[in-house]
Amino acid sequence: MVKAALSPLAIGLPDLPPVAGVRLGAAAAGIRYKDRTDLVMIELAAGTAAAGVFTRNRCPGAPIDWCRDALKGGHARGVVVNAGNANVFTGKAGRDTTRATAEAAAALLDCKPRQVFLASTGVIGEVLPPDRIVAALPALHAGLSPDGWADAARGIMTTDTFPKAATRVARIGRHEVRITGIAKGSGMIAPDMATMLCFVATDAKIPAAALQDALAKGVATSFNRTTVDSDTSTSDTVLLFATGQAEHRHLPEHGGHALRDFREQLADLLLELAIQVVRDGEGAQKLVRIDVTGAASKRSAQRVAMAVANSPLVKTAIAGEDANWGRIVMAVGKSGEPADRDTLSVAVGGTWMARDGAVVVGYDETPVVAHMKGREVEITVDLGLGKGSGTAWTCDLTHGYIDINGSYRS
Amino acid sequence: MVKAALSPLAIGLPDLPPVAGVRLGAAAAGIRYKDRTDLVMIELAAGTAAAGVFTRNRCPGAPIDWCRDALKGGHARGVVVNAGNANVFTGKAGRDTTRATAEAAAALLDCKPRQVFLASTGVIGEVLPPDRIVAALPALHAGLSPDGWADAARGIMTTDTFPKAATRVARIGRHEVRITGIAKGSGMIAPDMATMLCFVATDAKIPAAALQDALAKGVATSFNRTTVDSDTSTSDTVLLFATGQAEHRHLPEHGGHALRDFREQLADLLLELAIQVVRDGEGAQKLVRIDVTGAASKRSAQRVAMAVANSPLVKTAIAGEDANWGRIVMAVGKSGEPADRDTLSVAVGGTWMARDGAVVVGYDETPVVAHMKGREVEITVDLGLGKGSGTAWTCDLTHGYIDINGSYRS
Repeated sequence: MVKAALSPLAIGLPDLPPVAGVRLGAAAAGIRYKDRTDLVMIELAAGTAAAGVFTRNRCPGAPIDWCRDALKGGHARGVVVNAGNANVFTGKAGRDTTRATAEAAAALLDCKPRQVFLASTGVIGEVLPPDRIVAALPALHAGLSPDGWADAARGIMTTDTFPKAATRVARIGRHEVRITGIAKGSGMIAPDMATMLCFVATDAKIPAAALQDALAKGVATSFNRTTVDSDTSTSDTVLLFATGQAEHRHLPEHGGHALRDFREQLADLLLELAIQVVRDGEGAQKLVRIDVTGAASKRSAQRVAMAVANSPLVKTAIAGEDANWGRIVMAVGKSGEPADRDTLSVAVGGTWMARDGAVVVGYDETPVVAHMKGREVEITVDLGLGKGSGTAWTCDLTHGYIDINGSYRS
Repeated sequence: MVKAALSPLAIGLPDLPPVAGVRLGAAAAGIRYKDRTDLVMIELAAGTAAAGVFTRNRCPGAPIDWCRDALKGGHARGVVVNAGNANVFTGKAGRDTTRATAEAAAALLDCKPRQVFLASTGVIGEVLPPDRIVAALPALHAGLSPDGWADAARGIMTTDTFPKAATRVARIGRHEVRITGIAKGSGMIAPDMATMLCFVATDAKIPAAALQDALAKGVATSFNRTTVDSDTSTSDTVLLFATGQAEHRHLPEHGGHALRDFREQLADLLLELAIQVVRDGEGAQKLVRIDVTGAASKRSAQRVAMAVANSPLVKTAIAGEDANWGRIVMAVGKSGEPADRDTLSVAVGGTWMARDGAVVVGYDETPVVAHMKGREVEITVDLGLGKGSGTAWTCDLTHGYIDINGSYRS
């Protein structure tokens, strides 16, 4: 396995103040890595509501099955996350490990196993024995702290080159609540171990149904708008917990108008985390934003944006700092969405290179060339058909991606 | 633009005997390349029936529009193909060039412009003036020969590292007819100029409707089952011409049983050409075949096979000679097709590595490791659900792909 250098697009961890009702920390359980933490525990106050969004991959890992089932209860008291082994495609042994892990954590947290949420990331198809996790949990639990967010962000990393976290303050009525999240991911499962995981907690007191709705909508406009290599992990997980420690007024079952700012801040935080994952995309040298306007519908615009974001030819052109709008036209056309060649326009870095189906004769290439040399590249596609718009984020496709993913596992 | 070395998967041109009613050749028109042929002309006997299948890209080149229109007549007298400029996204100038080219060829061939088929491949978004093509056509036409197949195969190349052709003999009743085809392609549009083009001719006398049906079915089981990088060119074209020079018995409008062998031989020839394109995939070091069995349906099996074939993580693992079945499971799961983790089995080179949702404990890795080091890699996925099966071909994803596509155009 190639140890990748720090992404040139890396950003530092922000200050991560405590979230009332949350204690967390990390330990080195020796599951696969040496000399680093690889096990994270989060303790949540009694009465915490839970929401979750999981991979659409049809072959999910055992922890995904566990979480989907646990989510039916709507309440959470704890989370256990390990890095190094994804516990995917491990049959009955995998299910046994999830149960043993949840039971051990539940004993420490004085709750039911079904109130413990699990996530695993790492190699696929190797049995993950519960022994080291179960052995490491008591000391880890004893050391949990409200200030453990940064340690937790580091403990869930696999091929990530930097830890990822973000925090927001939202208003519910006259009160302020905090929302803090950590994430990991740098490709989909690279070298068998990328996967995107994200854990967010707030001290707000939000009914489970409203929480789930806010999370689903927030994921739709963040993680579902980003791509590194079009591959979908078997373990992708986003969990959101509301500890209910804040003293704002009681909210109706579906949240209502009072949740408006919370929903906006949550969506914004999720997008920041999702873009951090793209910034750590395997081999990424450039962060790419694709804006699509003038589409037949919002959904159509989003699909066109993702088709451009997933095109290997567009991504290699960006790696080569080549504002190759012909490949962008190709990617728009292959999306299968309504597009009319003769109303299509393409801009890079704000300069329109092609308009209404033909190159802009004599456009000034200077700002485009300069823009392509930067770390952040912006592509705009106007389809000239309707009012639908959408945005996607991706990274370039470089030799670094091949280095990381084309090497042996051992 | 990087000039790629000969693909290690290259194969030589076969002997290409004449097809009655076909004369062809190539000329150096200086459209973009120097010191090589870049213009190909094919003359077809009066009464030749035509069939065509074109890219599904929504932003096709002007020659695609021209051919779709010409095909409505069902008859062909000639073909003109140029390499170096795709005449895509060129607006009215592009349409003017197709008309001027067809008119110039028609004057030489003594036919209507609508009986001339066109294809262009190369850079996108640059105007293709008809001047050099029109100037080169008379001498090219004067030198056409029944033995020009190999020259034509070379003249249509862009980033291809070797020319591609195949030939078959089919029986219609008691008579033998010949089917010969040439193809080009090595990525989808790499560096702006790969695209897949394929031209096939036969001396059989087949009504246009039956010819179109045979071609559509043949493309479905050949070119549509192969992928290099999942990108779809704006210019992909497969044309089939039947000159009617053979003396077999008259066929009904839809061909009927007498066309059975012809259809089989045609499909086989198209598959051979499609696999030659994959063998020349940009940066390809290994040819990969993915067989899917036990799917809910044939269509579902084909989609799963293509999801595996298009996965960057599977393709980089193969480049690294790593029989990473975890990534294969991931790709199956992300296809969105019915799949049950616990009935899924994966074999590489005929050795089952995972069965019924878990690794085969103690399987002998030796033959798998040896298989991965070879030039041809076979992956089998059994979904354990139904009787649907399908096959896809692809190549590995290597540093060569990044070299070729990540460099500047000029």
